[in-house]
Amino acid sequence: MTTAAPVNPALGQVLQFVDEHRQQFQDDLAELLRIPSVSADSAFRDDVRRAADWLVEHLTQIGLAVELVETVGHPIVYAESPPVAGAPVALVYGHYDVQPPDPLDQWISPPFEPTVRDGNVYARGACDDKGQMLTHVKSLQAWSRVAGELPLQVKLLIEGEEEVGSEHLESFLAENTDKLSCDCVVISDTSQFAPGVPAITYGLRGIAYYELHLTGPNRDLHSGVFGGGVTNPANTLAYMLHAIVDDQGWIQVPGFYDDVLPISEREREEWRRLPFEQKTYESELGVNGVTGEAGFSTLERRWARPSFDVNGLGSGYQGEGAKTVLPAKASAKFSFRLVPNQNPHKITAGLKALLEPLTPPGIRLELVEHHGGAGITFPLESPYLEAAADAIEAGFGKRPVFMREGGSIPIVNSFSERLGADVLLLGWGQNDDNLHSPNEKFSLADYHRGIRASAALWDRLAAIKKR
Amino acid sequence: MTTAAPVNPALGQVLQFVDEHRQQFQDDLAELLRIPSVSADSAFRDDVRRAADWLVEHLTQIGLAVELVETVGHPIVYAESPPVAGAPVALVYGHYDVQPPDPLDQWISPPFEPTVRDGNVYARGACDDKGQMLTHVKSLQAWSRVAGELPLQVKLLIEGEEEVGSEHLESFLAENTDKLSCDCVVISDTSQFAPGVPAITYGLRGIAYYELHLTGPNRDLHSGVFGGGVTNPANTLAYMLHAIVDDQGWIQVPGFYDDVLPISEREREEWRRLPFEQKTYESELGVNGVTGEAGFSTLERRWARPSFDVNGLGSGYQGEGAKTVLPAKASAKFSFRLVPNQNPHKITAGLKALLEPLTPPGIRLELVEHHGGAGITFPLESPYLEAAADAIEAGFGKRPVFMREGGSIPIVNSFSERLGADVLLLGWGQNDDNLHSPNEKFSLADYHRGIRASAALWDRLAAIKKR
Repeated sequence: MTTAAPVNPALGQVLQFVDEHRQQFQDDLAELLRIPSVSADSAFRDDVRRAADWLVEHLTQIGLAVELVETVGHPIVYAESPPVAGAPVALVYGHYDVQPPDPLDQWISPPFEPTVRDGNVYARGACDDKGQMLTHVKSLQAWSRVAGELPLQVKLLIEGEEEVGSEHLESFLAENTDKLSCDCVVISDTSQFAPGVPAITYGLRGIAYYELHLTGPNRDLHSGVFGGGVTNPANTLAYMLHAIVDDQGWIQVPGFYDDVLPISEREREEWRRLPFEQKTYESELGVNGVTGEAGFSTLERRWARPSFDVNGLGSGYQGEGAKTVLPAKASAKFSFRLVPNQNPHKITAGLKALLEPLTPPGIRLELVEHHGGAGITFPLESPYLEAAADAIEAGFGKRPVFMREGGSIPIVNSFSERLGADVLLLGWGQNDDNLHSPNEKFSLADYHRGIRASAALWDRLAAIKKR
Repeated sequence: MTTAAPVNPALGQVLQFVDEHRQQFQDDLAELLRIPSVSADSAFRDDVRRAADWLVEHLTQIGLAVELVETVGHPIVYAESPPVAGAPVALVYGHYDVQPPDPLDQWISPPFEPTVRDGNVYARGACDDKGQMLTHVKSLQAWSRVAGELPLQVKLLIEGEEEVGSEHLESFLAENTDKLSCDCVVISDTSQFAPGVPAITYGLRGIAYYELHLTGPNRDLHSGVFGGGVTNPANTLAYMLHAIVDDQGWIQVPGFYDDVLPISEREREEWRRLPFEQKTYESELGVNGVTGEAGFSTLERRWARPSFDVNGLGSGYQGEGAKTVLPAKASAKFSFRLVPNQNPHKITAGLKALLEPLTPPGIRLELVEHHGGAGITFPLESPYLEAAADAIEAGFGKRPVFMREGGSIPIVNSFSERLGADVLLLGWGQNDDNLHSPNEKFSLADYHRGIRASAALWDRLAAIKKR
């Protein structure tokens, strides 16, 4: 195991403590996993609070200043260690609530009776996010026991509503920017690139989601009697959707690519080295090939290029057999994935400018704007990313790869915008951990490595001169 | 009232008989309308048979040779008068079954208690088809009573399964071509062009109906994680549908227009004179305009030009709000309306030739062919059409217009193909008679005029030298 030399002489002892308490830390995780803190189901309301109380007690024992913050929904657990002059401040975000466990009959062992099989602990929340979140709590515990104090100030923000849309977190952030002020945010709620390939996710795509409703005649018509004599909204829908994107995947919204930041050579090089096999990917998806924007690899297209996807279509008769209907209405849901520097509002304006002139006589167009959010990246040169890479190397014995993610995590944008902090997405999970599905699991080796990496992270971050 | 002079001296008395028995004939219609012969609902099975029996008795009293032909479903009533040497043979087709009356609560008077309001009789089946079919029975009755014999042989084929797809009629036709042999077929089951504008429908469009299924990945994917990195079947569907028809309504299937017969100058001239107001049409449909094939009027597009309509679309998420799904499948139902001389099988071949090369990597295409049928016209110069026009003038006091219809009536093609006879579509109904809807009605004046026109038709047809 190659590990960069610790900055703080205590780190070695801290890591040793982590190693020695491996079983204890697994038992602590099992204790938390036994609490069915399902935020979506009011029948579990008391259990959700029990999980929050467990955390409050646990964090208090570690020596942190802890608050249980009431919201209209489930409480937020907030804790912090004392400020350390000259060192940066880190904010850990996580959540103690879990997805509903249904369908129950597909679990091999009960969702709230954590069970170890093949080195993994199986339970709802094992990976998402109790197990991952707890790695940071346990590393703080180790530092606290071994060194008596932390090398930097760490703040913990652990909510109970992540699985139901983080409804009350945004206002808590807005009202507590001073209290939460920090230099970097640490989130462990994603995955490694692959088994044995730990990763730092430093970029996310944004989204601009729309619903298009086209209305033609005031009622469904007989397509024999009227076909050819009235504008068909379903025909028009196909025409309009195809006007948005050509058959090469190139998006036709005016100005769409104007603000797109190119992928850097360093990134392309980094991703080219990733263990990604196009053939394996295709066979796992059951397809005989893929199409996409020319000149880019699949990972580049998914992570760092904008895209357009129809998410839903509905019109006329969808039942069995044939019905000769000329439908009165046709609708589509569709979304653009945006890359950093693209502005969702500008996309909306461009989309209207594209579609409105295409609306033929006899069709009424209604464009509904759903949620939009910008893409985001954190600079690969950020000292916090460098520190995290060193820490992961200490914890996992391998230097992490730098990846992006094609989806959006709105809370990451909120942290970045409200706190002006770089966000470190340090995922300890695996892609097959069955998040939101039966038989959710988390590798106990990854749990242990994550605690080690987190312990090293406090050391490495503390070495950064506070700006 | 301008009426061409009768060929048979008895016609004057026959028409007088019709006028004198107006109330009696209305009572007879009411009697048949009281029988709820709903063919689709097995609860009405005995009533359907009761309607058939009523017809058998009624036709026997007129002096026809009558058969009740059993089928696996509802029986067919067949009757014929004696052959008349040197005169042509006419076959009347109609149906005694009716649509279900639902929704019952929207009927002003009960569907099977015929009620007269404003000169219309309201009841299920009043127009479709008991009232219209009975005009021919009553005209035969008048001829029989007044002249003791008919001036030509008339055959009657009245089925009880028209509203459930005429399932057993086709095999009856196939097995009885000799028995049914005739020179022309008379069907009164359509509408006049407008109130006071009686019409002969001499052409119908055909149809080629398809279902297109596109399959992409083996499961729904997250559109953020995968968007841009996998071929989206819903995007592809829009692309393919738009490849079938351009935004000017011009169909792109190779060879599609090769066999299309042009509209004759006589037809265009005839239709230009019809009381059709584009603005009224649009406002009745609630649209601010229509699009369609350039160089053709709305009636020309609906009656005599081919068209392409998407009949249904389905893919991904169609519920409320936004779901970031990249759907595994996308489907469309669509159909072409064909004009005479176009062959549905040739269209299928052209469609495959168009779509298969457009199928991108990552998409599996499945094209399902539903029913197809050719368009059909009968020559405006046909002596049978001329005879029918004279007869309508005698019955309605107005010369009929010659129109086509945009939909298909498969049985018309069957009669034409199996019997080699011209089919006269002599509709006595109105467009607002609420067929298949609550408050179906039939104008008693049109019922009476229809009986007169039918009586005159036997006279006029008899004058045609048998070929």
